[in-house]
Amino acid sequence: MNNRYPQVNESYMNIALDLAKKGEGAVNPNPLVGAVVVKDNEIVGRGYHKFYGGPHAEVYALREAGEKAAGADIYVSLEPCSHYGKTPPCVEAIKKAGIKRVIVAMKDPNPLVAGRGINFLKENGIEVITGILEDEAKALNEIFIKYITSKMPFVILKTAMTIDGKIATFTGDSKWISGEESREYVHRIRNKVMGIMAGIGTIIKDDPLLTTRVKEEEGKSPKAIIIDSKLRIPLEAKILGTVKEREVIIACTDEFDNDKKNALEQKGVRIIVTPKDGGSKVDLKYLVEEIGKLGIDSILLEGGGTLNFSALNYGIVNKIICFIAPKILGGQDAKTSVEGKGVEKIQDAIKVNNIEYKTIGKDLLLEGYIEY
Amino acid sequence: MNNRYPQVNESYMNIALDLAKKGEGAVNPNPLVGAVVVKDNEIVGRGYHKFYGGPHAEVYALREAGEKAAGADIYVSLEPCSHYGKTPPCVEAIKKAGIKRVIVAMKDPNPLVAGRGINFLKENGIEVITGILEDEAKALNEIFIKYITSKMPFVILKTAMTIDGKIATFTGDSKWISGEESREYVHRIRNKVMGIMAGIGTIIKDDPLLTTRVKEEEGKSPKAIIIDSKLRIPLEAKILGTVKEREVIIACTDEFDNDKKNALEQKGVRIIVTPKDGGSKVDLKYLVEEIGKLGIDSILLEGGGTLNFSALNYGIVNKIICFIAPKILGGQDAKTSVEGKGVEKIQDAIKVNNIEYKTIGKDLLLEGYIEY
Repeated sequence: MNNRYPQVNESYMNIALDLAKKGEGAVNPNPLVGAVVVKDNEIVGRGYHKFYGGPHAEVYALREAGEKAAGADIYVSLEPCSHYGKTPPCVEAIKKAGIKRVIVAMKDPNPLVAGRGINFLKENGIEVITGILEDEAKALNEIFIKYITSKMPFVILKTAMTIDGKIATFTGDSKWISGEESREYVHRIRNKVMGIMAGIGTIIKDDPLLTTRVKEEEGKSPKAIIIDSKLRIPLEAKILGTVKEREVIIACTDEFDNDKKNALEQKGVRIIVTPKDGGSKVDLKYLVEEIGKLGIDSILLEGGGTLNFSALNYGIVNKIICFIAPKILGGQDAKTSVEGKGVEKIQDAIKVNNIEYKTIGKDLLLEGYIEY
Repeated sequence: MNNRYPQVNESYMNIALDLAKKGEGAVNPNPLVGAVVVKDNEIVGRGYHKFYGGPHAEVYALREAGEKAAGADIYVSLEPCSHYGKTPPCVEAIKKAGIKRVIVAMKDPNPLVAGRGINFLKENGIEVITGILEDEAKALNEIFIKYITSKMPFVILKTAMTIDGKIATFTGDSKWISGEESREYVHRIRNKVMGIMAGIGTIIKDDPLLTTRVKEEEGKSPKAIIIDSKLRIPLEAKILGTVKEREVIIACTDEFDNDKKNALEQKGVRIIVTPKDGGSKVDLKYLVEEIGKLGIDSILLEGGGTLNFSALNYGIVNKIICFIAPKILGGQDAKTSVEGKGVEKIQDAIKVNNIEYKTIGKDLLLEGYIEY
C-alpha cells in the first residue's frame, strides 16, 4: 500500500528492486533495473536488466506476461526508455503490449532524456505513477546516477580498522584487521564496481592481486588502477600478471623512467600521465575524469592513509564503508585509515552523512556519504 | 512468561530491574536492587535501594504491600540478604510478611554470603526460583560484581573518535569530536561511577574540571584520580579548586618534589605514591588496588592515548565505551585513542567481547568488554 496512491502496492515495487539487484556487477555502466507485470493482483511477468547491452527489464517482464499484459500494471524501478539505443525503446513495447498503467520508482537521472519516456506513455493514454520507493531506487542506482550526470566514477572508500582506529600494528602487520565475513563482503563489492584503486605503497608492501574472489559464474575482477607517481612498481608485482583477465591502469606524473614505462606498456598496462597536484603527486581529480572517459562508472578505493586523505581532499570520494573490528592494537606509530596532513580544526572536518551500520560477523560495518 | 517456570512472569522482574536503576550513582559501592511484590497478578508493592547504607529494596516493597504481602510473590533483582549489616536481614522481613514465593534474578555475587539468603528462605518453607533475567541483572550490577569479588574497581575506558580513528586534529584541536548528546551521556556515566581518571597530559592541555554536569538533585561528581608521576600538575589547575565538593587524588612515583607534594596536600589533595612500572611511570595495577581499598568501586577512565594503552596493558580495564562521530580528520600526526608502544602483531590484539552499539544523536556508541 502507498499513502498517496492507495491503489498502488509497494510490495510489487520491492520485488522489482530485488530483481534489479540481480544485475549487480554485470550491467555497468548501465543502470540496474527490475520490472514486474501485475494483473488482477497476480504477478504475470518478471524481468531485470541482466547484462550490459542486453534487453531491458521491461522486455523480459512483458515477454513472460505475454497476452496477460493487456490491461495489466507494470512496476518498473526506473523510467522506461524512449530512445533507440542498443535496444528498441521500452515505451513502445509497453504500449504495444496493452499495459494500462505504469508505476515508476524514479525518473531517468540522465537530464537529456528524463521525463521523455513518461511523457510518451501519457500521450498514449497510459496512466503513469512515479516516485514509488524512489529513495530505495536512488540508493540502488547511486553509481549510475553519479556517472550519468557527471561522467565521473562513483568512488567508494573502504577501510577496516580496530576500535582504536588502527589499520595495522606499529610493525605494519595488517593481516587481518577485519574478520572473514567482512573480507568476503569486500570481495562482493569488488564484483559490483568497474574499478579498484590502490596506491603504490600498498602494492609494494602487500603485493596484492586486487581481484575478486567471488565464486559465482558472473564473478569478474574490476579494472585495477594504481597510483604510482614515479612508476616505482616492480615489474614482478603480482598484479601485473592479471592484465590478461582485466585491464591494469597505472597513473603517474611526468616523473617516470621511459624504459620502465615502455616495459609496463609491453606487458599490456595502460599508463595515464596526469598533471602534478601542486606537489609531486598524481592529480586525482584529473585522473578520475580520465577514468570516467574510459567508461568506468565506479571505483572501490582501497588505499593507505596517504592516498585516502588525498582522495578525500580532492573531493572525489562519494561513499565510505568502514569495518570496525572488535580489537585494540594501540601504538603511537601504528597507521590509521586517513593520514596525510589532515585538517587543522574540528570544524573543518570532512562530514559523513546518512550513516547506516550493521554487523558483519564480529565486525561492525559503517556506511555513509561524504558531504563536500 | 518464562520457559522454565511458566508460572513466573518475567515482566515483573523487568520492572524490578528498572526500579533498581533508579539508585544509580547513589548506592555505590552497594548493589543496585529493585523489588516488586505481586499478588493475584497485581503489583502491590515496589521498592529499590535508594542510597548507600539505606533500607534495602525489599523493605520498601514490603512496606508498601502491607498486609497484601501475605501469600504474595516477591520479585527481587538480587538474592535477599541474610546478614545484619547496616540494616536487618531482608530474608527475615520476607518471612515475617508471609511471602509465599521469592523470584530472584541472580544470587549474591559475594562468595562469602552467596546462597545463604536463598537457603534461609527454603528452610523456612518459602519457594525460591532463581535465574530469572539473570543476564540482565548481572549487566546491571557489573560494577558491584567486580568490586565485591575482587575489591578492585570496575574500570570503564571512554573514548570519542572520528570514523578515521582520531581523537584530535594534528594541531591538537579536540573540541568537540562527539556531539552534544554524547557528551551529555558521558556526564550521566560520570554521575554513576565513584571515580574519574585522567592523565597529567590531559590536565595540562585542557585544564578540565572532570565534574559531572548532571542537573538532577542527586548529581554528584566522582572522585578525581590524576596520574601524574612527577607531580607536574600546576597549582592553579582548575581541578584543584574542586577538592571541597569531591576528593581529588593524585598518583605519582617517588620522583616528586617535596614542596609540591606539601602544597598539594595543603590544598586537600590526597597523594598516592606508587612503585614505578619498570620505566618511570605510575604502577596502575598497584594504584587501582589502593583505590579499591578507599572504597571506590568504579572508575571512568578518560585518558589520552598513552594512559589508555598503559591501562589496557596493565589489564585494569573492564569495559570500553567508544563514541564514533560522523567526521573524518585525517592527519598522520593526529592523535588516536590508544597509543603507547602498541602490540606487534594482529594476533596479539586486545580483544573486545559482547559488543553492543546504538546511535546517540549523530554519533555511534560502541560498548564492549575487554578480554584478557
